[in-house]
Amino acid sequence: MEDQIDPWKNFDVKDYDGICKQFGIEKFPYREMKDSPTFMRRGLVFGSRDFSRVLSCIKKKEKFVMLTGLMPSGKFHIGHKMVADQIIYYQNMGADIYLLVADIEAYNMRDKSLEELRKIAVEEYLVNYIALGLNLKKCDLYFQSSRSEDAKKSNAYYRLIGLVARKVTANEFKAIYGDLHPGKMISSFTEVADILHPQLAEFGGPKPVLVPVGIDQDPHIKLTRDVASRMKEFNFVPPSSTYHKFMKGLSGGKMSSSDPYSYIALTDTPEEVKHKIFKYAFSGGQDSVEKHRKLGGNPDVDIAFQLLYYMFEPDDKKVEKIREDYKSGDLLTGEVKQIAVDKISAFLKEHQKKRELARKQVEKFLSSS
Amino acid sequence: MEDQIDPWKNFDVKDYDGICKQFGIEKFPYREMKDSPTFMRRGLVFGSRDFSRVLSCIKKKEKFVMLTGLMPSGKFHIGHKMVADQIIYYQNMGADIYLLVADIEAYNMRDKSLEELRKIAVEEYLVNYIALGLNLKKCDLYFQSSRSEDAKKSNAYYRLIGLVARKVTANEFKAIYGDLHPGKMISSFTEVADILHPQLAEFGGPKPVLVPVGIDQDPHIKLTRDVASRMKEFNFVPPSSTYHKFMKGLSGGKMSSSDPYSYIALTDTPEEVKHKIFKYAFSGGQDSVEKHRKLGGNPDVDIAFQLLYYMFEPDDKKVEKIREDYKSGDLLTGEVKQIAVDKISAFLKEHQKKRELARKQVEKFLSSS
Repeated sequence: MEDQIDPWKNFDVKDYDGICKQFGIEKFPYREMKDSPTFMRRGLVFGSRDFSRVLSCIKKKEKFVMLTGLMPSGKFHIGHKMVADQIIYYQNMGADIYLLVADIEAYNMRDKSLEELRKIAVEEYLVNYIALGLNLKKCDLYFQSSRSEDAKKSNAYYRLIGLVARKVTANEFKAIYGDLHPGKMISSFTEVADILHPQLAEFGGPKPVLVPVGIDQDPHIKLTRDVASRMKEFNFVPPSSTYHKFMKGLSGGKMSSSDPYSYIALTDTPEEVKHKIFKYAFSGGQDSVEKHRKLGGNPDVDIAFQLLYYMFEPDDKKVEKIREDYKSGDLLTGEVKQIAVDKISAFLKEHQKKRELARKQVEKFLSSS
Repeated sequence: MEDQIDPWKNFDVKDYDGICKQFGIEKFPYREMKDSPTFMRRGLVFGSRDFSRVLSCIKKKEKFVMLTGLMPSGKFHIGHKMVADQIIYYQNMGADIYLLVADIEAYNMRDKSLEELRKIAVEEYLVNYIALGLNLKKCDLYFQSSRSEDAKKSNAYYRLIGLVARKVTANEFKAIYGDLHPGKMISSFTEVADILHPQLAEFGGPKPVLVPVGIDQDPHIKLTRDVASRMKEFNFVPPSSTYHKFMKGLSGGKMSSSDPYSYIALTDTPEEVKHKIFKYAFSGGQDSVEKHRKLGGNPDVDIAFQLLYYMFEPDDKKVEKIREDYKSGDLLTGEVKQIAVDKISAFLKEHQKKRELARKQVEKFLSSS
């Protein structure tokens, strides 16, 4: 299936198999992942490092950690949903979730105070996470700017950043990241410490940690694994990772928070969804109805079909029927778009109801913590 | 007086006036410093930045902070005493003392655990500080590896390191420090945050902060003052600094923790003091008694005399009499050395008694904090 359909093939990475071979990334065993999100079992998560360790924990019901970060910026859209769905999936599979809010990163890049960024993180991200099914009470949620309300934990976490910095040479850093900007360095060492710190004594000691990332984040992962092996006194288990392909934007280019017409936000109204899909979603159909009936459409590049395939039509039979009918010309572009609009709108309607409940929950959670 | 006697003139820095002019360092108003340590009122502290701000606080009895660090390594010697005497002096002048133990730095350079380094800091440094007169209870003593037992304070301190890193460019760093080693960077940004953090809201907000340092530390001070001016949201008062000359080692070279014959340790016995002064202290005397009686000695290069002048003979009349008698040849090298040995031994005898009392106090302090 993956060889047939790859809406991301023409995006940043052209050859995922080549990338895997080149960087020693293993295939992701997506067929083994029970009850996994639609995009996962349809191959959007394509690669991994040391994932067998995590798979073994899941099978044996042993403890492991899944860690991911969020950057509080702009609207929560379907690209973010893909990350959220993975968090929720691994939580259901028994992972302890570490959820970091990269507020210092955001503070550095945007003209907002830490207080404002905290508000965005809560209202845009956490509310959506909960509405999508995350049990926030069972997560270790933290802000980079203040790791914990337990000073022992905070001290251990920040201390680790300092120790990591002293394990990396300038040449090594330059080879990985291209230059030696101090801000970039501190970001990178903080990311390494984020991934490793669940294994500190103050956080329960060594254990498998999974970090699901885009392929562009692999340099961080490799650096973290290298540094971990140098810090022998900590007995770190080398962290595991998975790699997902990026969601394409509506017009076929990059999905970007700064361009609202490149994504569907989880707060979009049915009208906005309809407008965006019909007006902006790149079509694999032909120029005219006559030509389309004769030649058929190309689901491999049709964004409306991709949205159905990877996210909004989990039923295998139904989605294959749509694919075949589109290819044969029985289904017109507008008809596929309408199916996508209906499915997405139905999802959003339910989701937005859940958001209202989630909002109350998150406010309660944050005021009590 | 300063122009006459400068045991440090031939050490690292040859021309302190030139250095001051070159780097825009102001003279230190040592004649205005009431009840100051002998070395201070005799000109060993030679330069300053923005010191008038601190002087005004002292005169008006307004709050200010004095911050200094200690690196737990080896024996506590008379070079360290000079720093301790400054801390105690400013504490008596009304300063809130911030005392940082650079355990992460030491950890990085030495083959010792953080636990061992903590022990050295306590037994070698804190015990001596207290015995010399420091009121440790009134100090904010902290370890780099765990800023505070109050998570709000710890988070604010470590957050500041991250924010500082993002305010410095690679070119700027390279211009100051010569290269871009990640460990060096994190050390430097930690030092900047150390100096600035007493002004964070969590530590009581903006206020004058004084950092007494050796001239070799001025790059840190300048960087800190630059960074402070860029972080407008914090309203930092530019930190003040003073600069002292370095204590020369016994043989006239560098005083070094790794060479026990270059210093007098505050735990040395009278026999060790006698042995070190008579055997190793560089003499300004002549080759023979006859020649010495005729030509006299040179107190400007005589280490035994320097020890008396800057530290162990606070009485102005007495020390000037020794100087004149040595210059005239009335006092022989051995006689000046014996005066120094007697004075130092008497001081150490008293000090070592105080150490025993101090030890109990520091153990009590640390177990209660």
